[in-house]
Amino acid sequence: MIVTKLCPLGTHRVLEPAGALPQAALRLDATPVAYENELLCDVEALNIDSASFRQIVESCAGDEAAVAAYVLALVAERGKHHNRVTGSGGMFIGRVRTVGTSLTDIAGVAPGDRIASLVSLTLTPLRIESIHRIDMATGRIWMTGTAILFATGLYAKLPDDLPDDVALAVLDVAGAPAQVRRLVRPGDTVAVLGADGKSGVLACVQARETAGPMGRVVGIAPDAQTPGARFLVEHGFVDAFVEADARQTLGILAAIPEALPELADVTINCVNVCGTELASILVTKDRGTVYFFSMCTSFTAAALGAEGVGKDVTMIVGNGYAKGHAATALQTLRDYPALRDYFLERYASREKTI
Amino acid sequence: MIVTKLCPLGTHRVLEPAGALPQAALRLDATPVAYENELLCDVEALNIDSASFRQIVESCAGDEAAVAAYVLALVAERGKHHNRVTGSGGMFIGRVRTVGTSLTDIAGVAPGDRIASLVSLTLTPLRIESIHRIDMATGRIWMTGTAILFATGLYAKLPDDLPDDVALAVLDVAGAPAQVRRLVRPGDTVAVLGADGKSGVLACVQARETAGPMGRVVGIAPDAQTPGARFLVEHGFVDAFVEADARQTLGILAAIPEALPELADVTINCVNVCGTELASILVTKDRGTVYFFSMCTSFTAAALGAEGVGKDVTMIVGNGYAKGHAATALQTLRDYPALRDYFLERYASREKTI
Repeated sequence: MIVTKLCPLGTHRVLEPAGALPQAALRLDATPVAYENELLCDVEALNIDSASFRQIVESCAGDEAAVAAYVLALVAERGKHHNRVTGSGGMFIGRVRTVGTSLTDIAGVAPGDRIASLVSLTLTPLRIESIHRIDMATGRIWMTGTAILFATGLYAKLPDDLPDDVALAVLDVAGAPAQVRRLVRPGDTVAVLGADGKSGVLACVQARETAGPMGRVVGIAPDAQTPGARFLVEHGFVDAFVEADARQTLGILAAIPEALPELADVTINCVNVCGTELASILVTKDRGTVYFFSMCTSFTAAALGAEGVGKDVTMIVGNGYAKGHAATALQTLRDYPALRDYFLERYASREKTI
Repeated sequence: MIVTKLCPLGTHRVLEPAGALPQAALRLDATPVAYENELLCDVEALNIDSASFRQIVESCAGDEAAVAAYVLALVAERGKHHNRVTGSGGMFIGRVRTVGTSLTDIAGVAPGDRIASLVSLTLTPLRIESIHRIDMATGRIWMTGTAILFATGLYAKLPDDLPDDVALAVLDVAGAPAQVRRLVRPGDTVAVLGADGKSGVLACVQARETAGPMGRVVGIAPDAQTPGARFLVEHGFVDAFVEADARQTLGILAAIPEALPELADVTINCVNVCGTELASILVTKDRGTVYFFSMCTSFTAAALGAEGVGKDVTMIVGNGYAKGHAATALQTLRDYPALRDYFLERYASREKTI
């Protein structure tokens, strides 16, 4: 590696095109040696973004070996896990091997510490030596290999009181509860689309707390019998659950008069399929807020959709990072033992819990 | 036309796929007969969205006749002007021919009134009989044909004190100044990317007013010698103008220490090319707001870009509609005679001004 100048954003790792930042780059240099402003980590597992994993699984007809081959080839070519179709990535869990000399005092971690990356795999130099196993239900990939984190790259030390893989599952969507806490006010009506998924469940629990006794939380998902949906209803984390597919805009419209007559002050979109922008807009009040946490969101479908139906709503692009979001998300599990149990049951790997 | 049920959102005009709303539809029925919940209009001119027009012109190598043929074929096939690459459309100007019977009392317009549509062409049933002329500089297309507006479709009567085509140019981007007025507070630093374009100029003028004497407005565009850039600087609508291409993120980074050391409280992206999400994020303060008015914005590039650089910013999807936005935008021209003169010079067609 011959590098003229180190960049806090990691441009010194970009192979193509020149001058790009790592997220926009086609290819990164994933050489497993840390520059002075980098962390080198031994990766144990990836947690692939839900939209990305779904797309890969579908393109591989659900075959685990084919998914492994696909991911190996993708990462070998790009030097990062950056899905070409969805544009999204995921995060990793691993152990710090080297802390660059200029980061020693500020990194907050030391060699040997276990961490989770809170920065997208789409900009993380990654090298995979081998893939050991893939959990086809959750998008977790156990592997041997290395990753590089830059000075601006976010990461969190893994907590002592939760299994690694549960912490990983929570941290992957840590932005959701943090943003809900910011956006929702006591007394608000909150609609959560994709309520029964990982980020949806966390969003509902946080919304129920923040909206308070005078507020209402309405979960929306195609199937009211999924584990997530049943969990939300049984524990009272939603005041109503609407069984409807947000892609079928007319179906959502038909459900509104009974389930959401007042419309939502805040709508959180946590859906992992495309085409739900308009439903999100239609369930929201004029001057309300729609928060698109889904990586499937189309910017133009949202912008033109709101204009097309003459709806004056504020639409926010989900930012995976919010100050203190990792702590907020992990604390939510500690505050709600039922939620903790749900995550343990769903996301703790069998090898470790048996 | 055999239609079972009329829908305020216009689904009764969707030919394919069934159950879609007009914006998501592949093809619309543009038959020029008004149902009781529709307006039928004789279209005089289209104002194509800047990103869409640029893409079409590039794909036609800048040839006017080729652009006309391209637009004719696109509209004949889809029943609407809906660019397949950019996903965006534009608006039209025309004269009301028929007001559906159920809208007579609430439409606010009568047959013969001249109006501009404030709803995207991506969901407006459109039929073109012939194209007369295309202004390759502004994206206006003079034509003969018809369009349908739905009950929820927004439109504005054209003002008496401005030429039609100037009003059209302003109304096309009317959301920009209205949103700036909402987002900016006195004393704020405001960065406007793509400052010298149509929406950028309006955004700068509104930002200068709303930020007040204690605020700062910084325009950013690749060329400080364009008519828009010179206008902004000469009339003091920007406090500083940065000559930089927002696609070159490293160039923007290099310009920040001198031009925007405090970073922006509010950043308005009015750029009509792709790849400027990260620059928008990087010029913005932590806990600041980025408003993406550009239809070229990539949702994932914005979401993952902010996360990748660990920037806690609120990113808003530009909504072309805001209550009162048409009146706000037109009033801005009345309040600032220099701005009015600039729009008259740039957007009044030669036939009408000579």
